[in-house]
Amino acid sequence: MTIGILGGGQLARMIALAGYPLGLRFRVFDPAPDAPAGQLAQHVVAPYDDADELRKFAQDLDAITYEFENVPADTVRLLGSLGTVYPPAEALAVAQDRLAEKRLFERLGIPTPRFQPVHSLDDLRRAVAEIGLPAVLKTRRLGYDGKGQCVLRTASDVEATFTALSGAPAANAGLILEQFIAFSRELSLIAVRGADRDVADYPLVENVHRDGILRRSLAPAPSLTTAIQRQADEYANAIARELSYVGVLALELFDVDGRLLANEIAPRVHNSGHWSIEGAATSQFENHLRAILGWPLGDTSPRGASLMLNLIGEAQPTPELLALGGHVHLYAKRPAPGRKLGHVTFVAPNDAQRRAIIEQIDREAAAG
Amino acid sequence: MTIGILGGGQLARMIALAGYPLGLRFRVFDPAPDAPAGQLAQHVVAPYDDADELRKFAQDLDAITYEFENVPADTVRLLGSLGTVYPPAEALAVAQDRLAEKRLFERLGIPTPRFQPVHSLDDLRRAVAEIGLPAVLKTRRLGYDGKGQCVLRTASDVEATFTALSGAPAANAGLILEQFIAFSRELSLIAVRGADRDVADYPLVENVHRDGILRRSLAPAPSLTTAIQRQADEYANAIARELSYVGVLALELFDVDGRLLANEIAPRVHNSGHWSIEGAATSQFENHLRAILGWPLGDTSPRGASLMLNLIGEAQPTPELLALGGHVHLYAKRPAPGRKLGHVTFVAPNDAQRRAIIEQIDREAAAG
Repeated sequence: MTIGILGGGQLARMIALAGYPLGLRFRVFDPAPDAPAGQLAQHVVAPYDDADELRKFAQDLDAITYEFENVPADTVRLLGSLGTVYPPAEALAVAQDRLAEKRLFERLGIPTPRFQPVHSLDDLRRAVAEIGLPAVLKTRRLGYDGKGQCVLRTASDVEATFTALSGAPAANAGLILEQFIAFSRELSLIAVRGADRDVADYPLVENVHRDGILRRSLAPAPSLTTAIQRQADEYANAIARELSYVGVLALELFDVDGRLLANEIAPRVHNSGHWSIEGAATSQFENHLRAILGWPLGDTSPRGASLMLNLIGEAQPTPELLALGGHVHLYAKRPAPGRKLGHVTFVAPNDAQRRAIIEQIDREAAAG
Repeated sequence: MTIGILGGGQLARMIALAGYPLGLRFRVFDPAPDAPAGQLAQHVVAPYDDADELRKFAQDLDAITYEFENVPADTVRLLGSLGTVYPPAEALAVAQDRLAEKRLFERLGIPTPRFQPVHSLDDLRRAVAEIGLPAVLKTRRLGYDGKGQCVLRTASDVEATFTALSGAPAANAGLILEQFIAFSRELSLIAVRGADRDVADYPLVENVHRDGILRRSLAPAPSLTTAIQRQADEYANAIARELSYVGVLALELFDVDGRLLANEIAPRVHNSGHWSIEGAATSQFENHLRAILGWPLGDTSPRGASLMLNLIGEAQPTPELLALGGHVHLYAKRPAPGRKLGHVTFVAPNDAQRRAIIEQIDREAAAG
């Protein structure tokens, strides 16, 4: 069987690495000739709006999926007419639009920061009056790694920020103002829903971002209670049911003193699930494939207390990370500032030993 | 960095799958156009004695290794002149010759079944007189999966067996008669020795063969004592030192009521180490790469009690194996009787739960 993946980045690469042992083959569609997955899959190099190449790509595929949510809607529509695309188009449409996403949370009774759509400066002033400051102004579309959003702290920020953001190309679809949440921590839940509607949830992950980019994940999150895990599972499962979802779904949450607020969803395998390659009985990548192929889902239990660090910006010294006991994953990308070049996962037997690893790494980083 | 592998079978395939996350690329040399590793590596399709193609293959490789021990000596000699080949040629020479192998054990004081070289029927009669019956007559070279060997049970078997085996093409290099061992069980030890001479040993594995083909491995072997593990480690480490070994080395042993006898070595990753992909902190495949690249070795600790079953002869129903909790590995080979098409690994938390899995699988197999 051959699986088609829109996008040939590191997520496609890790899906392929998880799928070869299952006897699967892979074909990726990516305009970049040096896309990371191209080393180990058939690779169609063409722009996402090239209908002829998309038709060739879709030939004889047993399933089609995608690795990023900013796939043009027309591309997915065309592929949907040529084969089965999972996760379903509706999930993609919701994830592409912060307003639709927030309204979905609201409809399902899932707590989320207060929000208001914004089309004009007047809208924004009304929204600020209602939501209060600080608040976050975001483009409804094409947000990724912290791009397309600004925090409004005082009334004097309002006009300048509106002008700045509404001039962005992604602002055509409008903006959204969201309540600023002083969260205790950011969490994410990776859920996977099979074609048979069975859902499996990984333990909640604690994520640390810097400059809008994920730096480290702890899985399971420290001090995780059964109650908070059950709450997150219920939210994710409700979203998956509502969207007739098939595949891996990531739900990002704010933890405010033990109360969860849904922030956003990603209809794909997710950076905060990378720890599952070594840290869980079945990785998110394998489970995504099992879901879209209608196969039974694998056990999502953690094997210990994992720590995942993203390797950002510059090539890392692999032997040193290996010597520390890390499981190294490099994506075969050229170094560039802010670019995710790989990640490394440490699986400790328990939280205390994970803390010791974190302290050691932080010490070594500080020592340069 | 690009690693060259002689042979593009399932072992090369699993080496490549373990190596991509480390940022490595792969080139395999295999005369079969449909070799399993060809799906995910550069693939030079040529006979092993094609010097021109071997030269092209070796260009710009950072390390060269092999996945089977019956590589022609000339091939390895040529590659050795073009780059560094690990494991070293001497290990290959010893593993290719049962007599050299037994003499190595003897030289290192490692207990092994009694043996005698056999070049003629008279030699064989003398050897039978000395070793006694039953005994096993083997070709010195090209033994694999139980081929090229016959058990002599009575004096009347001697002449016919000699005629049959000495007519085999592999018999040019001579035969060897070995004492027949009524072993309690077969064990194997997977060791890995780094370029820095550091050695790491996986726990002893219990192997069950049928018709000369490995059917299942239990890792760690049940009822494993520290003493027997230490004994096996010492034997493997002595062999690795003696051969200036770099890479993964498999040592097959007979366990005779708690006493170990060395049977043979394989200078490569080994079927009885496949469980380590999920069942150990670092797989034999990753550790082989780390060794030949001079990188620090990874932790060989088991994660629980693993069971590895080979999938032999016919394509297996993947969803059923997945539903049982198995980690499925298919090699993309065409089904054929006696052919290893894949394997499946179950990682249980302890030996009792592993026994329960074995009983369940045996029940389902009996029910058809």
